[in-house]
Amino acid sequence: MGSDAIEVPRGLAGVVVTDTDLGDVRGQDGFYHYRQYSAIDLAERRTFEDVWYLMIHGALPDAAARAAFTREAAALRTVPDEVRAVLPAIARASGTSGPLAGLRTALSLLGAHAGFRPVYDLDGDARRADTLIACAAVPTLLTALHRLASGDEPVEPRDDLPHAANYLYMLTGSEPEPKHARAVEQYLISTIDHGFNASTFTGRVIASTGADVAACLVGAIGALSGPLHGGAPSRALDTLDAIGTPDKIDPWIRERVLAGDRIMGFGHPVYRTEDPRSRMLRGVAQDLVDGPESAALVDFAVQVERRVLEILAELKPGRELHTNVEFYAGVVMELCGLPRTMFTPTFATARVVGWSANVIEQAADSKIIRPAARYTGPPPPQPVPEP
Amino acid sequence: MGSDAIEVPRGLAGVVVTDTDLGDVRGQDGFYHYRQYSAIDLAERRTFEDVWYLMIHGALPDAAARAAFTREAAALRTVPDEVRAVLPAIARASGTSGPLAGLRTALSLLGAHAGFRPVYDLDGDARRADTLIACAAVPTLLTALHRLASGDEPVEPRDDLPHAANYLYMLTGSEPEPKHARAVEQYLISTIDHGFNASTFTGRVIASTGADVAACLVGAIGALSGPLHGGAPSRALDTLDAIGTPDKIDPWIRERVLAGDRIMGFGHPVYRTEDPRSRMLRGVAQDLVDGPESAALVDFAVQVERRVLEILAELKPGRELHTNVEFYAGVVMELCGLPRTMFTPTFATARVVGWSANVIEQAADSKIIRPAARYTGPPPPQPVPEP
Repeated sequence: MGSDAIEVPRGLAGVVVTDTDLGDVRGQDGFYHYRQYSAIDLAERRTFEDVWYLMIHGALPDAAARAAFTREAAALRTVPDEVRAVLPAIARASGTSGPLAGLRTALSLLGAHAGFRPVYDLDGDARRADTLIACAAVPTLLTALHRLASGDEPVEPRDDLPHAANYLYMLTGSEPEPKHARAVEQYLISTIDHGFNASTFTGRVIASTGADVAACLVGAIGALSGPLHGGAPSRALDTLDAIGTPDKIDPWIRERVLAGDRIMGFGHPVYRTEDPRSRMLRGVAQDLVDGPESAALVDFAVQVERRVLEILAELKPGRELHTNVEFYAGVVMELCGLPRTMFTPTFATARVVGWSANVIEQAADSKIIRPAARYTGPPPPQPVPEP
Repeated sequence: MGSDAIEVPRGLAGVVVTDTDLGDVRGQDGFYHYRQYSAIDLAERRTFEDVWYLMIHGALPDAAARAAFTREAAALRTVPDEVRAVLPAIARASGTSGPLAGLRTALSLLGAHAGFRPVYDLDGDARRADTLIACAAVPTLLTALHRLASGDEPVEPRDDLPHAANYLYMLTGSEPEPKHARAVEQYLISTIDHGFNASTFTGRVIASTGADVAACLVGAIGALSGPLHGGAPSRALDTLDAIGTPDKIDPWIRERVLAGDRIMGFGHPVYRTEDPRSRMLRGVAQDLVDGPESAALVDFAVQVERRVLEILAELKPGRELHTNVEFYAGVVMELCGLPRTMFTPTFATARVVGWSANVIEQAADSKIIRPAARYTGPPPPQPVPEP
């Protein structure tokens, strides 16, 4: 480093790396959007395929574009035989490292098999085509790896089901109830993109070198698998389990808050209001109630949420902590029958579309992302001693 | 983004992301070092294993540490059967995408099979142990994939050969001449680390999320595969081939320079002097001359280098362009019998050690690397139209 070193906050917090037309998160307003459209409104009024098209092509599709895109994406759900043949070995090897490690390997293989070339050498259409191959295959790869790890045969994708319904179908082997498919679809839409998190940034750094789409997405998956990345909806549900029953809520929360422990499902680095995804997913969860068991879970979650916020306000006044996306995302996925080990992978099936849009946008910029470090060790040169 | 957005140069140029004790590059002085020791001095006086140990453990090993580390690393060259069994399928699938795409998949699989856990959950010793597993296996994975893609059987590693000699042995199936093994070893040492390039930065961003070592290294491999990353020594050799014969040197170079084309093997974003790696590797190449054929190649390279620099000084006065590491790295690898498709992968077998040291250093910092983007599209919210 020379004298031209530029000092910024740790972790590049607040440092503007790039311009984007994809959307942004307005933490003060509790609002985020995809290309001008409220993401929550999109989740409430559109299909996953519509929003996927919006992110990749820049506008919502008309009827003809929707039909063509839906058909094209559905056809790409089927993974080539050469990749499928390797999935059992990947599932076996990834046993203890989990489904994201398996997806990392499988998507890397799929990209190579599809002959993905450096984005630097491709035009916009070819870049979009490669992201479509990757995004369409991710649910197939993930569900196949999950079933293989559980000792079950993978379920072949169906091209007559919408994206979210087909995902649940491949996971369980039976066609999902429409309300479950729609609830998961709304969750997936709401989680396609959300500002410049570490996995999105990773994908863009790799794209800035001109590398192929699989290289970018595989790096992003790796970043998503990090415990500090956030976005592990199963943890919030584990919290509900740990509390156990309504009478334990208050002592459990007080003990954690007084010990200074973080309570999973609460707090976000950007939002200074309720997370808009949390508000929407609470409603989705409440709409899913169809019997005493689901009613008990949703009621319990609502009670825990209320008491966490009240106790935090009492014990830590002035520290604004709100429910984040994890809390009700976990409840919704539980109610729809998803196994907890698949909560974060389910998140990845949506976020890969957001990463793809970011990769496409970054690839249009020819400037490599290459910051600097400051050497802080003792001064060189030290003579090399004889061995 | 709010009003606290911090503006910096494009591509984060000059922006200090982190402190490091691993070394730095002093472009004005034509000097770079690993933990105080001139990297060139290390390449001239030490083994690859010694410098690997230095990067990972923080100091050069004494005799006992060297023996233990060498033994441990050599034992880890053998890839587990479950991973080895998948290599033919990876080699087949990665046909057109090349050896780095194959390595990306294979190392991802190896890390999952080894049960790599998030670095966030590990202590320093466990992090070092995981990087050792990865770095020791990379030459085995790469040479196996290369041989399989060429229709040959992989060659099992030998644990009685030094790292570089074993790499050449696995590649060709016969024990290399000592001078070839030592030349490649010097190249590998000189290329272990080199400042905060895009692949190193990628590895550190992923490590900052707490993800496992394979996630970090696989992301870095992806970034290295990008055409804008630099470091493709085969391109410089392709230039020598394109020129063809000494009498064509001047017209070929003049035409390229006047057309404003970049000449591969010349120019570096940091060095304002000769690249110290280039100077060392020129000497290594000259020492490898052992007959008319090698003499002709080295003499031709030296002539081309001299004329490129002279013609650039004449036609573009004031634009300081020097020979970079690619130029003689390509010549050295050609003289040692490495196929050109393996030049960049050979670079990766060394750089993975540098990435590992960076991952270990980053993992000790609990702050996630999460910058920001600036939304520049039209203002939201736009009402979502009915489908």
